[in-house]
Amino acid sequence: MNKKAVVLLSGGLDSATCLAIAKNEGFECYALSFDYGQRHECELQAAEAVAAAMGVTDHIVIKMDLRKWGGSALTSDIAVPDAGSTAGIPVTYVPARNIIFLSFATGWAEVIGAKDIFIGVNSVDYSGYPDCRPRFIEAFQECATIGTKAGDEGWQFQIHAPLQTLNKSEIIRKGIQLGVDYGLTHSCYNPGACGLACGKCDSCHLRRKGFEDAGVPDPTKYQ
Amino acid sequence: MNKKAVVLLSGGLDSATCLAIAKNEGFECYALSFDYGQRHECELQAAEAVAAAMGVTDHIVIKMDLRKWGGSALTSDIAVPDAGSTAGIPVTYVPARNIIFLSFATGWAEVIGAKDIFIGVNSVDYSGYPDCRPRFIEAFQECATIGTKAGDEGWQFQIHAPLQTLNKSEIIRKGIQLGVDYGLTHSCYNPGACGLACGKCDSCHLRRKGFEDAGVPDPTKYQ
Repeated sequence: MNKKAVVLLSGGLDSATCLAIAKNEGFECYALSFDYGQRHECELQAAEAVAAAMGVTDHIVIKMDLRKWGGSALTSDIAVPDAGSTAGIPVTYVPARNIIFLSFATGWAEVIGAKDIFIGVNSVDYSGYPDCRPRFIEAFQECATIGTKAGDEGWQFQIHAPLQTLNKSEIIRKGIQLGVDYGLTHSCYNPGACGLACGKCDSCHLRRKGFEDAGVPDPTKYQ
Repeated sequence: MNKKAVVLLSGGLDSATCLAIAKNEGFECYALSFDYGQRHECELQAAEAVAAAMGVTDHIVIKMDLRKWGGSALTSDIAVPDAGSTAGIPVTYVPARNIIFLSFATGWAEVIGAKDIFIGVNSVDYSGYPDCRPRFIEAFQECATIGTKAGDEGWQFQIHAPLQTLNKSEIIRKGIQLGVDYGLTHSCYNPGACGLACGKCDSCHLRRKGFEDAGVPDPTKYQ
């Protein structure tokens, strides 16, 4: 029997690639997505399409409202800036988002008996988010192990971040090798009609450049 | 101006005492509760009553459905056992619950500019839950600091667990000193009509014994 893994799946390019890598490593995959009041909630339709295309064992969407406290352009009325227009931690950073996502993944993993969790963070083309740092992933792994049955039973959670050191074009090339259909994925932070990317936000910019650099046709539909 | 703190407030005896301690230490308190599909959701009414009685600055209830994966007597149809009837990690343990709760607290704290989070865990009369261990609290503090703006700005989140080394009667005596009205709190895992405790579960047992040992009248209404 294959080992089980919980894979965080936003519906974007990175997490779709991450899922493909987990499958390719022989894991039976349980995909986990979040409806957190994000501006670009149509990424959830993408997550469903990707999960179905890749044949996951189960796909759960957890609904919770991070708009209760806002604090991010993705969960409030703060505007999404154009790419490259701000310095430091960008306003699209959602406070503690990956900590929250990984915590839920840990809970589900404990219930289904999985010891492996996959997350598609990367620290090369990442957007300056503190919760994408390698040291954060290590710290979370330690915390999840101590705070669950794992600590009592003497094993460790493994938080896999296989994209950590890849740039966007390397991620795309990897995904193409593994048969990812990027036409199903959604990256834009500020879409108009669902499925139509703005082409101007940081996320669109990184995605478009990634396809160019990889020499792969960009399947994204822009407004 | 007072320093701000996010205080996890379940509506039980411990978290009410924890909130009183935070207030007594001069913090401006932001109470955070969770509607996670718990069997004893009437604890949320208790949380509201406690938050109002203690004059918190804000009280947010985050709704999310941990019944999506169950795995605990509190979030599935698994029966709540009578006190003392099981060994090891009890079936009322909700996988990764405190990791999830602390993650949300970290997110809210980051948005409102709080560097302090209070959680009412304790490792004396605790029920064998791995996410109540002191080492877990330390590991989470490290993880939250690295995974947020704190890490960039060079400060540390402080996760306060002021009940960590107290037993139930000491917690009650502390709360009585600070004016906590325990009649507003709810501890039972398996209540009948809201406000009526079963008197048989582990949580009821610890609570009743705590009042006896403290020599304080027990305000709990039993079925």
